[in-house]
Order: sequence, then structure tokens, then C-alpha cells
Amino acid sequence: MNLGRLNHVGVATPSIAASIETYRTLLGAAAIGEPFDLPAQGVKVCFIDAPNTQIELIEPYDQNSPIAGFLKKNPAGGQHHVCFEVPDIHAAVAHLKANGATVLGEPRIGAHGTPIVFVHPKDFGGMLVELMESPKGDH
Amino acid sequence: MNLGRLNHVGVATPSIAASIETYRTLLGAAAIGEPFDLPAQGVKVCFIDAPNTQIELIEPYDQNSPIAGFLKKNPAGGQHHVCFEVPDIHAAVAHLKANGATVLGEPRIGAHGTPIVFVHPKDFGGMLVELMESPKGDH
Repeated sequence: MNLGRLNHVGVATPSIAASIETYRTLLGAAAIGEPFDLPAQGVKVCFIDAPNTQIELIEPYDQNSPIAGFLKKNPAGGQHHVCFEVPDIHAAVAHLKANGATVLGEPRIGAHGTPIVFVHPKDFGGMLVELMESPKGDH
Repeated sequence: MNLGRLNHVGVATPSIAASIETYRTLLGAAAIGEPFDLPAQGVKVCFIDAPNTQIELIEPYDQNSPIAGFLKKNPAGGQHHVCFEVPDIHAAVAHLKANGATVLGEPRIGAHGTPIVFVHPKDFGGMLVELMESPKGDH
């Protein structure tokens, strides 16, 4: 297993619309995707392209959203997770479990249409890590 | 101004050595720089290369370290900031100030030897943003 590319940094926000305006005005973000809903995961998301990676803005889909708790603690929002690509999600999960890491649930389809899992922050020094199978076209 | 490349994600840790071991074991990180001290900034840092960006591990240099407070609130560590590259730090600072952002201090030399500044998290939805002038060799 080799450390894969950083697909995105996940950033929780109470308002994707307000965050888009901030990135546009202060940093000159221009390649901004259309926000879309992921009701199965309880979030709305929007990807902003930097030249080498993406920022994933994440807004709660409803009050039961898994990021509602994060925003309760951090009302303004903030960095939520980092996502690294892996060539094979099942091999990655097996490797993590074999090394004692706590993988949260089974692989499921993520915002980019490929399987993802999250790893418990306690395994990564307080940082929530998402692993995402690289889109096939990127190989 | 255009959104520049994500130079690194800054991750606070109580122990760079322990974090290196985690990234190596769980994610297969192989390109790991030698940790070094930045006493003027009150931190020790270590860069881990992903194929497209870097993780900057940050450990307090001493008790007066600017990240000592972060680790008090988050003893295990966690995501601390994101750093985007800009072609000209003074132009970036002028642009940010003209748009009402709070730039923290004057540009100073950062871990990669080029000028950097931090922008107050309140301007970026709770996220601490570092701007770093791109190394000249990268132009």
C-alpha cells in the first residue's frame, strides 16, 4: 500500500452558498461544481477545484445529518476530514483492519461515485480520514 | 487572483514520531521528510508527500507554541490549517484586506522558505487558511 493522492479536503459549513462566495471573493476560486444532495449520507456537497485537489464543502441535509454534531461544536464550520485515494477499497480496508484500525462501516458509494470508507479519528491522531477508490478513468 | 494549488494540509500532533509511524503503517507513506525545528514559529514540522500535495505534521516546539492551545483543546491532535499557494504574497494580502479579511501579522518566511501569512478562521468558515508564496522553481 502506498499513500495515494489527496482527493479532497472535506470542510463542513452551515451554508454552501456562503462558503462558495467566500472562496470566490477571497481566493479567486473559479471552478466550482454545482452543489448536489447525498440524502443517503445526510449531506449536501459541493466541490471546488484547486489545481491539484479539491475542497469538498459539506452542509447538513437535515437535522439527522452526521455533520450536524460537528456544526453544533463548530457553528462556523471547519475542516472535517481528508480523503486519500486508494486503488482498491477492499484491500485498503483489509490492510487497515489487519493493523488494528477502526473502519467505520462497510464501503459505500461516495460523492465521486466510487466506494469510500471512513476511518476513526482515534487511529489518525484526531483526524477523520476518508479512503476513496480512485475513479477508473484516473488510472 | 485564482485559487492556487493546495501546498499542504497542516495537522497538529503531540508527537511527530508517532504520527509518522501511523502514516507509514496505515497508509503506506514512504516519502517522509526529516523533521525540523522552526523555533521562530514555535513549532517542529515534518512533511509527508502524497503524490499531489503534502501533509505537514506540526508539533509544539515548547509550551509557548502557538499550537499548544490547539492541542489543549484537541489532545490527540487534528487538522489545523490548509495552505494554498499564491504567486505574490503582498498582492494576496492586499486583495484579502481590500475584501475585509483579517490577515494575521505581516508576511514571514515559512517552512518551505517562502513568505507566508495566515488568515483568521472567522473569514473562512472556521478554517485557518495559510497563504504561501510559491517557490520560484515551481513557476
